[in-house]
Amino acid sequence: MTGRSQIIRLTKMRGNLRESIEDSVAVEEPLEIRLGYQSGGKRQTSSISITMRTPGDDEELATGFLFTESIIRSPDDVAIVKPCSGDNTVRVELEDGVAVDLDRLQRHFYTSSSCGVCGKASLDALHATDLETTPAIPGQFSREVLVAIPGHLRARQDTFAETGGLHAAAAFGSDGELLIVREDVGRHNAVDKVVGALFRAGRLPAQELGLIVSGRASFELMQKAVVAGMPLLAAVSAPSSLAVELAREFNVTLIGFLRGDTFNVYAGEERIAG
Amino acid sequence: MTGRSQIIRLTKMRGNLRESIEDSVAVEEPLEIRLGYQSGGKRQTSSISITMRTPGDDEELATGFLFTESIIRSPDDVAIVKPCSGDNTVRVELEDGVAVDLDRLQRHFYTSSSCGVCGKASLDALHATDLETTPAIPGQFSREVLVAIPGHLRARQDTFAETGGLHAAAAFGSDGELLIVREDVGRHNAVDKVVGALFRAGRLPAQELGLIVSGRASFELMQKAVVAGMPLLAAVSAPSSLAVELAREFNVTLIGFLRGDTFNVYAGEERIAG
Repeated sequence: MTGRSQIIRLTKMRGNLRESIEDSVAVEEPLEIRLGYQSGGKRQTSSISITMRTPGDDEELATGFLFTESIIRSPDDVAIVKPCSGDNTVRVELEDGVAVDLDRLQRHFYTSSSCGVCGKASLDALHATDLETTPAIPGQFSREVLVAIPGHLRARQDTFAETGGLHAAAAFGSDGELLIVREDVGRHNAVDKVVGALFRAGRLPAQELGLIVSGRASFELMQKAVVAGMPLLAAVSAPSSLAVELAREFNVTLIGFLRGDTFNVYAGEERIAG
Repeated sequence: MTGRSQIIRLTKMRGNLRESIEDSVAVEEPLEIRLGYQSGGKRQTSSISITMRTPGDDEELATGFLFTESIIRSPDDVAIVKPCSGDNTVRVELEDGVAVDLDRLQRHFYTSSSCGVCGKASLDALHATDLETTPAIPGQFSREVLVAIPGHLRARQDTFAETGGLHAAAAFGSDGELLIVREDVGRHNAVDKVVGALFRAGRLPAQELGLIVSGRASFELMQKAVVAGMPLLAAVSAPSSLAVELAREFNVTLIGFLRGDTFNVYAGEERIAG
């Protein structure tokens, strides 16, 4: 079992002082996601993704990734999920008869970005799927609940507290309770872990839950929120132009710079009470 | 010409006050990198990468990406670089006779991570190439120079100052001067732009320059520093375990938490004077 943090020896320099100390760093390791499925009457296995991640919650990461990529739609699609931490792989076997559209992933061929997809193409792809705009419940989240969330999140970031090196994502209810908190060196992985946990619990689409991320809100994170049916994405830092565009198009509430008692609302303001 | 920031209207919430204001967000748009090369006596074109990036310096981003992926080795390999901001593409045409190993990129097939590569496989791949461990010049960088760099970097982050949404990377000399500063929504893109600028200026390997990044040091960023022959990577935030491992293996100086007058040295301490 690989840990999420690792103790290493380093030199701390402060002014003219050099001191040899031990400290924790966040563990970063590759994870290969393999997908098993039935095609033309035979079982096949494809390597779907290799992502640099912090070990832990690999089943959630794999299923969350497959769900947000629209490869799987329901827990009923999945027969077994088998993580193998020894060789950093996780195998997801689909039930017979579940149709797999690997062309969706083909579009990701030869990409190397924190997004992995072409924004404009993905906007189109989102329209082509059966995603629905999340219905707006006016006043679903109160200002008081929202400003308290970052503090709750920090208090639950166990590994970040040790290493200073992990992003966090969490799903929260309109009462402000954090239902699921996950950490990872990759913020897209932290979100996939949260979505994967909701998926495995049969809680998607999660139209009653907001999503908070510890960093910035990019197109990719907003895309994952849209696919998960979550009506609100809150980021502690800045949003990008394409995150704002996508939020407005799919009527998701987008909050940025959620700090102290202030925040910015870039889309979907009607969901915020007070 | 697409800008790096964009003005949008939003609602600022502070305590019980709601205010409609205009503010800037960082522009995030896809860029497709197309590679033209000679194969079997004919010219071919392949789509190599689609990355979400902040527009600007697309030629540098494309050549830096191709260099850090070891697809091209020298400015002499490149015939022309043609950006087209209208459709967010950049075309890199190689000289006839330059061998292209697209199998290198095949390894990135079906990836969707901020890294895009399998760490262990990449460590092996780095060994398989003709990369040399950067020779250590004892005392190459002084403590005083290093602690001043983050301030210089912030002063040069024009778009970040507007939007709060961009990562920065810079190459600096042992005198502390920032030679090249680039910003992007993706930190790997910011580094590729810096490396691409050095590449186009014929300054690689850059054994006399350090690299600073505004965020964390991941495996991927350390890999780019190694390929560029840069002897030092400094991060304002935390390094990951695999960044430390790679730095120690290739004898690159790795600095983390460079803030105020303190920093941590995870590898290659002999390059730091004082």
